[in-house]
Amino acid sequence: MSGKKFTVVGGGPVGALLAISLARHGYAVGLYEGRPDSRRTSIYQGRSINIALSDRGWTSLEKIGISDAARKQAIPMYHRAVHSVAGDITALPYGNEGDAIWSVSRGGINEHLLDIADDEPNIETFFEHRLVDIDFATATTTFRRTDGDEAVVDADYAFGADGAYSKVRRLAHDLPRFSYSQTYMPQSYIELNIPANDDGSHKLEKNALHIWPRKDFMLIALPNTDGTFTCTLFLNHEGEPSFESLRGRAEVEAFFTSNFGDAIDYLERPVEVFLEKTASPLFLVQVFPWSFNRKVALIGDAAHAIVPFYGQGMNCGFEDCAELDGLIDRLDHDWDRIFPAYQDARKPNGDAIAELSKRNFVEMSDLSGDKRFQLRKMIEAKFSQRFPALWTPLYSMVTFSPDIPYSEALRVGDEQNEVMEQIMALPNIECDWDEQYVMDRLHELASATFGEGQ
Amino acid sequence: MSGKKFTVVGGGPVGALLAISLARHGYAVGLYEGRPDSRRTSIYQGRSINIALSDRGWTSLEKIGISDAARKQAIPMYHRAVHSVAGDITALPYGNEGDAIWSVSRGGINEHLLDIADDEPNIETFFEHRLVDIDFATATTTFRRTDGDEAVVDADYAFGADGAYSKVRRLAHDLPRFSYSQTYMPQSYIELNIPANDDGSHKLEKNALHIWPRKDFMLIALPNTDGTFTCTLFLNHEGEPSFESLRGRAEVEAFFTSNFGDAIDYLERPVEVFLEKTASPLFLVQVFPWSFNRKVALIGDAAHAIVPFYGQGMNCGFEDCAELDGLIDRLDHDWDRIFPAYQDARKPNGDAIAELSKRNFVEMSDLSGDKRFQLRKMIEAKFSQRFPALWTPLYSMVTFSPDIPYSEALRVGDEQNEVMEQIMALPNIECDWDEQYVMDRLHELASATFGEGQ
Repeated sequence: MSGKKFTVVGGGPVGALLAISLARHGYAVGLYEGRPDSRRTSIYQGRSINIALSDRGWTSLEKIGISDAARKQAIPMYHRAVHSVAGDITALPYGNEGDAIWSVSRGGINEHLLDIADDEPNIETFFEHRLVDIDFATATTTFRRTDGDEAVVDADYAFGADGAYSKVRRLAHDLPRFSYSQTYMPQSYIELNIPANDDGSHKLEKNALHIWPRKDFMLIALPNTDGTFTCTLFLNHEGEPSFESLRGRAEVEAFFTSNFGDAIDYLERPVEVFLEKTASPLFLVQVFPWSFNRKVALIGDAAHAIVPFYGQGMNCGFEDCAELDGLIDRLDHDWDRIFPAYQDARKPNGDAIAELSKRNFVEMSDLSGDKRFQLRKMIEAKFSQRFPALWTPLYSMVTFSPDIPYSEALRVGDEQNEVMEQIMALPNIECDWDEQYVMDRLHELASATFGEGQ
Repeated sequence: MSGKKFTVVGGGPVGALLAISLARHGYAVGLYEGRPDSRRTSIYQGRSINIALSDRGWTSLEKIGISDAARKQAIPMYHRAVHSVAGDITALPYGNEGDAIWSVSRGGINEHLLDIADDEPNIETFFEHRLVDIDFATATTTFRRTDGDEAVVDADYAFGADGAYSKVRRLAHDLPRFSYSQTYMPQSYIELNIPANDDGSHKLEKNALHIWPRKDFMLIALPNTDGTFTCTLFLNHEGEPSFESLRGRAEVEAFFTSNFGDAIDYLERPVEVFLEKTASPLFLVQVFPWSFNRKVALIGDAAHAIVPFYGQGMNCGFEDCAELDGLIDRLDHDWDRIFPAYQDARKPNGDAIAELSKRNFVEMSDLSGDKRFQLRKMIEAKFSQRFPALWTPLYSMVTFSPDIPYSEALRVGDEQNEVMEQIMALPNIECDWDEQYVMDRLHELASATFGEGQ
């Protein structure tokens, strides 16, 4: 319609979804990815990387007109299966009956979106094109191809959808007044694998996210459709115990045996993998601005690299795309207004989910530890079930309430926190938590804070 | 004594002071500065850049054994001279009788410290040596000289004392797990000048820091010993009014006339300078770690670039040096322990003064505005005078109490804030502020928070 041309740097799930959204609005889109096409090579073969999708992700896909075909390849996880040191398993539901987060193959959803992009006549996709430079005033990009040649690409606008290590973002460092923050978590991680049974079934309960919470560290496992689980061990980079401190074979074996006794028989060569692999760092990146000269903008992890403890990374990136998709219509293709409106709408939410996911390490890794913490969750859940209009637990706001922006979830969650601190300060709360007076007091405090009937 | 060799990158006031401290502990020091020697060229001529020194700065210099000769070249400022739009001037004392912050020529103190360094046989100083590279594992540095040649310098340890735009810090970006944050303030600034009277005297009161606080922007003036004032205009980068919005000559003239009516006759070509100069950005940089491999560390603005609104930048850098100076003795020259101890001691204080100086823009620029805010300061001052053991105002903790670390000042200040909010919430506080019951209530709250007799 408009004849305007876009360059999208990065052909991951967010880049592909953005390209589809732009193309369906009538724009010509060049989608550039540095790596080879995973559908034609075997770069994903042999390892399943899965990620969590929840209501925000699905809703965003639907808003852009992607049917829920992707959901067929996803495994719903209705609860956390919490493995104690002794090997007991406790099921902690994620939300109400039927609420689930979904384990999705990153490669699978990426390829699904690339297939849809291939069917869009307005999209031309280029693999093995690595970004070398971008002109933030003109949106002209330069890519280096595998054969060493460079391609200079003109466009009216460009997006950096090139992930947590975004080159577009790194090039933006040279712009005046670019605020930037990069924070490393004390933990690093390695991925481990639980193979399928011989008959292709799962060795652990399939419809759950398994957690071995050990306070300072934890192991988690997400199911794949092929019967395997992809596991992630989060452990401090240094200190005791840490990737740095655990060096010898016997030491690592003892670490697994004493902490993950009921998993060690399932895990594929955990000690060897631990000793062979270099642990990957976990970091958050926050920047401002997200858009430059109303010509170039960042989206997805490139704009807000977060840590994985809330399972919201891809959900947030898809929401960025859905917001933009809606703005194109609402602001009638006027990109002088769309860029700032997109930034204003999404930056506070990117910051909020960064903060929430950082905090959630403590929540996840301490799930079976702190008794008072568990008690508090129980009181909250009971109250929320009785007065759902007055109280949605933070986890549910973030995960199952796509109409509540992350920034509002964070704010309300902090207010809930203050209320619950007053409840937990009641003198006999550990014995009386199920008494009516506790519910009454909570109702009184919640009504005062959140307003009757909200 | 030890035969150990240090490279100090950056020959500004902090680098020079650090070199002196190290040399006096018996180390061989190479002090490298990118610019020419200001004592032999005229790079400072024609412009006086002054900065504020206060008790922390003086105390730190004394700890390292620098006599107060520098103070002879400094001008004490006992109060803020607040200029209203109408041209009235109100004197707001900085502290108690005799408390002052000092206006110091940056070039002057730098040259004074370089002179002292020249007298130290253990220090060799190299000008026009620009850092090109540093090996964080070995402390080997590479410099490019003005003639284009490169010098590779071996040392046992190295310090990056190379200021807010530190090259050492930028090179540290490539190290694993380096956390970094760079935040731009909405304001930028330009420097203006008020010349001396023909007889060399000052056109405005000499022993004051002059402020024209206009809420969203402000002008300040600090006295120089030659009768001039160096003025700084802080104004938003964009928006209304801003460096971006004020473009035409007539517009800029109207801006000065209506806002700084009593200054415009003194200022040297303010409109022309405003139109000619590019405004400089204000930014904060926070990083972690500050020390690398127990071989290399950052110090001063290189470790903690802050904004100038508390006048603490150089004071904090000098405190870094004094802390290190003390640690060398206490930890008996054991640098494996000195580096981490230095980082542990100073990082929280660098973060605290960054936060405090960011907040202080509001305080400074709103000095003559918010009546409730002024009232509150008045109540606080009265209480502090009556109960000095219970209450030192935040400004005095930061500026006149070198024994209170910045981090403690920030924490106590936040607690004072909560107490004062309760006082300001008293129903008739605007009429009753001088009544005994207000003091009584404040005493009650302060005693509960800070403990009787603290």
